[in-house]
Amino acid sequence: MTAPTLRVNPTRLLERIVSLGACGALPGGGVSRLALTDADAQGRAELLRQMRELDMEIRIDPVGNIFGIHAGVEDAVVMMGSHIDTVSTGGLYDGALGVIAGLEVVACLKDAGIRPRHPVVVAAFTNEEGARYAPDMLGSLVYSGAMDVDDAYRITGCDGSVLGEELRRIGHCGMQSGPRDIHAYVELHIEQGPVLEDQGLNIGIVTGVQGISWTEVTVEGRSAHAGTTPARLRHDAGLAAAYITMGLSDMVAAMGPAQLATVGALTLTPNLVNVVASRAVMTVDLRNPDNTALCAAEATLAKLMGEAEARYGVNVSHRTLARFEPVPFTPALVDTIEATARQMGLSCMRLYSGAGHDAQMIAPVAPAAMIFVPSVAGISHNIREYTHPDDIMNGANLLLRVVTDQAGLA
Amino acid sequence: MTAPTLRVNPTRLLERIVSLGACGALPGGGVSRLALTDADAQGRAELLRQMRELDMEIRIDPVGNIFGIHAGVEDAVVMMGSHIDTVSTGGLYDGALGVIAGLEVVACLKDAGIRPRHPVVVAAFTNEEGARYAPDMLGSLVYSGAMDVDDAYRITGCDGSVLGEELRRIGHCGMQSGPRDIHAYVELHIEQGPVLEDQGLNIGIVTGVQGISWTEVTVEGRSAHAGTTPARLRHDAGLAAAYITMGLSDMVAAMGPAQLATVGALTLTPNLVNVVASRAVMTVDLRNPDNTALCAAEATLAKLMGEAEARYGVNVSHRTLARFEPVPFTPALVDTIEATARQMGLSCMRLYSGAGHDAQMIAPVAPAAMIFVPSVAGISHNIREYTHPDDIMNGANLLLRVVTDQAGLA
Repeated sequence: MTAPTLRVNPTRLLERIVSLGACGALPGGGVSRLALTDADAQGRAELLRQMRELDMEIRIDPVGNIFGIHAGVEDAVVMMGSHIDTVSTGGLYDGALGVIAGLEVVACLKDAGIRPRHPVVVAAFTNEEGARYAPDMLGSLVYSGAMDVDDAYRITGCDGSVLGEELRRIGHCGMQSGPRDIHAYVELHIEQGPVLEDQGLNIGIVTGVQGISWTEVTVEGRSAHAGTTPARLRHDAGLAAAYITMGLSDMVAAMGPAQLATVGALTLTPNLVNVVASRAVMTVDLRNPDNTALCAAEATLAKLMGEAEARYGVNVSHRTLARFEPVPFTPALVDTIEATARQMGLSCMRLYSGAGHDAQMIAPVAPAAMIFVPSVAGISHNIREYTHPDDIMNGANLLLRVVTDQAGLA
Repeated sequence: MTAPTLRVNPTRLLERIVSLGACGALPGGGVSRLALTDADAQGRAELLRQMRELDMEIRIDPVGNIFGIHAGVEDAVVMMGSHIDTVSTGGLYDGALGVIAGLEVVACLKDAGIRPRHPVVVAAFTNEEGARYAPDMLGSLVYSGAMDVDDAYRITGCDGSVLGEELRRIGHCGMQSGPRDIHAYVELHIEQGPVLEDQGLNIGIVTGVQGISWTEVTVEGRSAHAGTTPARLRHDAGLAAAYITMGLSDMVAAMGPAQLATVGALTLTPNLVNVVASRAVMTVDLRNPDNTALCAAEATLAKLMGEAEARYGVNVSHRTLARFEPVPFTPALVDTIEATARQMGLSCMRLYSGAGHDAQMIAPVAPAAMIFVPSVAGISHNIREYTHPDDIMNGANLLLRVVTDQAGLA
């Protein structure tokens, strides 16, 4: 016996998004709902209200993760989820979509009178963005057992606040445990990149999260008069930085589209028109879904730093700012999602996530995968972040079908 | 009949430099004698004291240029000179050396009882550095007739002061005219660059002042997530700036050592590790002693900007910050100085000045040339600016010989 073909209610789903988006709404559009602030507390209250309206059992765990449970008959749950915290000038969809679409899925099950075999859970994890407290994805990190909750409590935010105190202040330092046995975790999220829109596709089947390597490179040269110092006697830190930047661009062209490299920040000293720069500090962001390839890119960066020293008579040092290995999602679950999308007539492609998500914290402990929907112009972490309603509905309907199939009938 | 072979008095010359250097001395070494400040006024008083001690006739013109005159019998004068104002953290030698060595030359003539045919003049021009009032080389510009003194009076400084008011406040708004008929102008100056030291030479024979072209280049791209935006969908302003920087470096290698190019200032927006830069603002400083070649370098910059637009899908705009044509010095006088240096057994090379000097304002109206002495490590506009006493004496003795020859005997 299989479940009937269900469809989400577009109006109800958009109303859910708008209701949550009103919490921490910015005057010019977008939202600011930094983790555990008053705005986040308002968002959490709205979330709890919607869960209660759906007669879900609510649990809040010690790090403030919220779990809404639609009862089944087995212990193992099918979990949907994401987060409702945002960056300081965020959009309506990043994180919120995965949680809200989960509630709409439950509403559909409820409307259809379906009692699932596996309980269906909607999770909202604390502090995914990392915009107030480092590290990001903190709530799912603690939930997965990779961080002790007492360590989390002691984290001081960028505004000087202490995470544990803020959790208690807003009343979200819960006493309950989240579900421990996960049959499958599926997270719907906006792509936050331009690929799906560029390819004209409905759905991204996310095969994993890229590995990330962040390096700060410091070039020490010698300041010199731009009018009196011949090229051969210069130790130009800015030119060495440009050499490394171009070398990374050439590396990307050689390694193919899976490799990304970005020099997003660069500061020259003394930064004057007529003085050769004595110092350049630059950041290098390398990403690749394959850790061996990412290591090769890091080796290329090291080679470029050495070449820059030799060519420009400068000293180049570096320090690692962050390093995460790639996280592959569960192949069988990824295959299932893709097959379901194609059955539903949705155009799709497999891709890696370039950004971090709660799903990557669940993946080491349970079957996990993600569904992406297109972001207009790839814009995210910005009040102009937007996803067309049709794309939201496609993603939510795919989530509904996958979760219904995974949960089964009681 | 020729003058006897004279030599400067090293102790006396160094004492003159130290006495002037005490005016505006900084606690950690070096001097701060911004034009027309109290410290500059102290320096001017010390200069006038030394001129009076040498029985020189003193004239101060309406823009505060000081002329000390050692009488001759003709109208046309042989002038030495430079400036005594400094940048806010300057050294003892930049400018001061040319004025002080001039006084030592006069002291030698006086000691030897020589009455020259052409009067021998020591000039100290107002606001050469341009560190307080723009433009730089203002005093010699007004003296040469290229700027009206009333326009100069109205200039507001970077500290809000008005040039004319400051001139009157320190009592240096003179009523006299400087000498109008210049037989030859010779300026001794530190190189402010590393070439002479690198070549192990005593003297630089300055053949002119390079042309200067300053351009501000603005690259407009599009900010994008470093983890979700494939290289082919980026509009990376920082990468485009690196491309232009490397292209200018390649141009210098192709055009040879006469061409200089410096990207000294570069600012990225938003300047974050994980965001592709939406905007880069960079400065390009191009210099060449040949105006045709400098125009070719500017054309290369334009070509690079066009290539960057095409390669990186960015918009590149630019504006000219400054443009000065090269100023050649008087060939016969340059030849004479070089021949004299070689007669004296001084090792020397011809070179262009990369920095601006008062001599370039005199050159359009009278025979003019310059003598450079080495700067340790090429450092200038810095409290660590230094020139070895031996080099100072070489330069001063060459100045003495050239001026004695040019002035002739009464």
